Amino acid sequence: MDKKYMETALKLALKGEGNVNPNPMVGAVVVKNGTIVGEGYHKQYGGPHAEVYALNEAGSECRGATIYVTLEPCSHYGKTPPCAEKIIEMGIKKCVIACLDPNPLVAGRGVKILERAGIEVEVGLMEKEALELNRVFMKYITTEKPFVFLKCAITLDGKIAARTGSSKWITNEVSREKVQRLRHRFMGIMVGANTLVMDNPRLNARIEGGNDPFRIVIDPELIVPSDSNFASMKDGKSIIVTSEKNKDSEKVSLLEARGVRFAWLPGDEFKISDILKKVGELKIDSVLLEGGSYLISKAFEENAIDGGEIFIAPKILGDQKGIPFIKGFSFDSIEEAFELKNVKFNQYGNNISVEFYKD
Amino acid sequence: MDKKYMETALKLALKGEGNVNPNPMVGAVVVKNGTIVGEGYHKQYGGPHAEVYALNEAGSECRGATIYVTLEPCSHYGKTPPCAEKIIEMGIKKCVIACLDPNPLVAGRGVKILERAGIEVEVGLMEKEALELNRVFMKYITTEKPFVFLKCAITLDGKIAARTGSSKWITNEVSREKVQRLRHRFMGIMVGANTLVMDNPRLNARIEGGNDPFRIVIDPELIVPSDSNFASMKDGKSIIVTSEKNKDSEKVSLLEARGVRFAWLPGDEFKISDILKKVGELKIDSVLLEGGSYLISKAFEENAIDGGEIFIAPKILGDQKGIPFIKGFSFDSIEEAFELKNVKFNQYGNNISVEFYKD
Repeated sequence: MDKKYMETALKLALKGEGNVNPNPMVGAVVVKNGTIVGEGYHKQYGGPHAEVYALNEAGSECRGATIYVTLEPCSHYGKTPPCAEKIIEMGIKKCVIACLDPNPLVAGRGVKILERAGIEVEVGLMEKEALELNRVFMKYITTEKPFVFLKCAITLDGKIAARTGSSKWITNEVSREKVQRLRHRFMGIMVGANTLVMDNPRLNARIEGGNDPFRIVIDPELIVPSDSNFASMKDGKSIIVTSEKNKDSEKVSLLEARGVRFAWLPGDEFKISDILKKVGELKIDSVLLEGGSYLISKAFEENAIDGGEIFIAPKILGDQKGIPFIKGFSFDSIEEAFELKNVKFNQYGNNISVEFYKD
Repeated sequence: MDKKYMETALKLALKGEGNVNPNPMVGAVVVKNGTIVGEGYHKQYGGPHAEVYALNEAGSECRGATIYVTLEPCSHYGKTPPCAEKIIEMGIKKCVIACLDPNPLVAGRGVKILERAGIEVEVGLMEKEALELNRVFMKYITTEKPFVFLKCAITLDGKIAARTGSSKWITNEVSREKVQRLRHRFMGIMVGANTLVMDNPRLNARIEGGNDPFRIVIDPELIVPSDSNFASMKDGKSIIVTSEKNKDSEKVSLLEARGVRFAWLPGDEFKISDILKKVGELKIDSVLLEGGSYLISKAFEENAIDGGEIFIAPKILGDQKGIPFIKGFSFDSIEEAFELKNVKFNQYGNNISVEFYKD
């Protein structure tokens, strides 16, 4: 039964996907005498926490009840008062927590406050599922770098475009719709400048209620066209990571006037880890890495990919001059190849995707 | 109910897979008053047909009964007497047939014999499933060329080996076991001579009760090593397709003395369709095309691949010098790419396969 309540809480948590970043997704359920009397989840960044909704819904039924919560209740005054205090106030008897909050501002303090008030606390029920649900939050809160999720659409022979650069369309509509959902799920999209020059993508989340992600272009040489879709969005979400040597260029002023933001790095060739540090400083907890080959290959080289979904269409180019999704490595045996871990397959009509996670 | 009986007959038929070639797989069920009173399937090439087993099992219950059979009963004296006659003799009242036999020796004659004897005949129940079951037979009997089934094991970036040619192991054990079953299912394995030189494969079916396939090597220049596994099998199942210009070479005599058989073609560069004609003449109804890139690419070019299963491992070489499973084409857009049809996905642990059929 315990597990069933926590499952419900996890499902509730997932409803906040794409709307709470850089906060974690959290769900909570209040149970009294075997009946769920309150449910809640963190709906929106800056809004009330899951526990608040669940406790308020349960009201006076909280007295003597058990609360199931997917993440350790907070102990600090942030955008809202601490949930641990509210749990005590409402007279909850027992608190079952899936996983602790690695946020240095919480980190076990929530549990301590509850225990000190005489509440029975249990930690670890469905911990694995809870950690997986909040992979993004866990990575960002502990490293201050965004979670990197690779997305690419390839032919069976691993190409993302024909020799001409033309890539319309490798995957089917169902796959492409799924990509729109990924763009809602993660806070940012990251692409190389060449991809932007080549495809002039809009890089928004074209689904109902979708949150447009921050658009991050890695562009050391500042080749992004001023009239590109990227430079015309006027929503403050277009960000160029470029070389410090471009700081005084006219193009920068022009683009800034159009609402484009800049992040600066020294030199001409950026390390992925330095890029991610800059992006993290902008409070962006996750990026969808959409290409091109160069950026993807660098990210693999630096072991910087935390997860991903590679969409495969049953098409074959058979052309060595087609554009591969990854290149530049030199391996003498299969044992040296990159091996994706925690693999799961998703079918989208006649397309399949390989979803994977580093941890 | 009709459909249920035919499904049973189709399941029975499948039991003959790999043992009846170049005959079709056939299953039969005799039903009397809503009860199955006889079942049978074609078990072994040259052995009794499905109908004979089912009718004999039903015995005197046949009188007034219905027989469900996945393929039109034969009308000719082949290795066994005609089944249509036996159905009449046993007093069957109605015969339900999934699909007609395109064999020019039958081709509707079975149905005619039955109808002339006053038996009610119905054709077409689960016809699609019956035709799919016997794709190999249908292709071979109508074209006299073997059914070509592609098998390859690739990385996510479409490579069958590292730059050194090393391919051990791309796919996992479950996938590799499935390949052994494919080698049992099809009568022949076809590979290019380079693959044989490189890997020295045994090309047998390493499963319990597996029938070793004919091993066909396409080798215009006769480079197959005399001490290869291929040349040492002594079972008369190793076949070299080579150029007529090699007819008088000493190597031919040497290999023939070791039990290797030859098929001859003019010139140095063979068309796949000419190779298949030669293989068909050897009464081989199907080949598993296992590589390498050159042969696979030629087969795609000639639209000679009838189906296949491409096994994909979640590994990435990222090396342009890795060996691709297909090469040599020049396509400017994705629309020009080869597109696999009738696609189905099979999961083998952390590997996935794309199974497909031309028709």
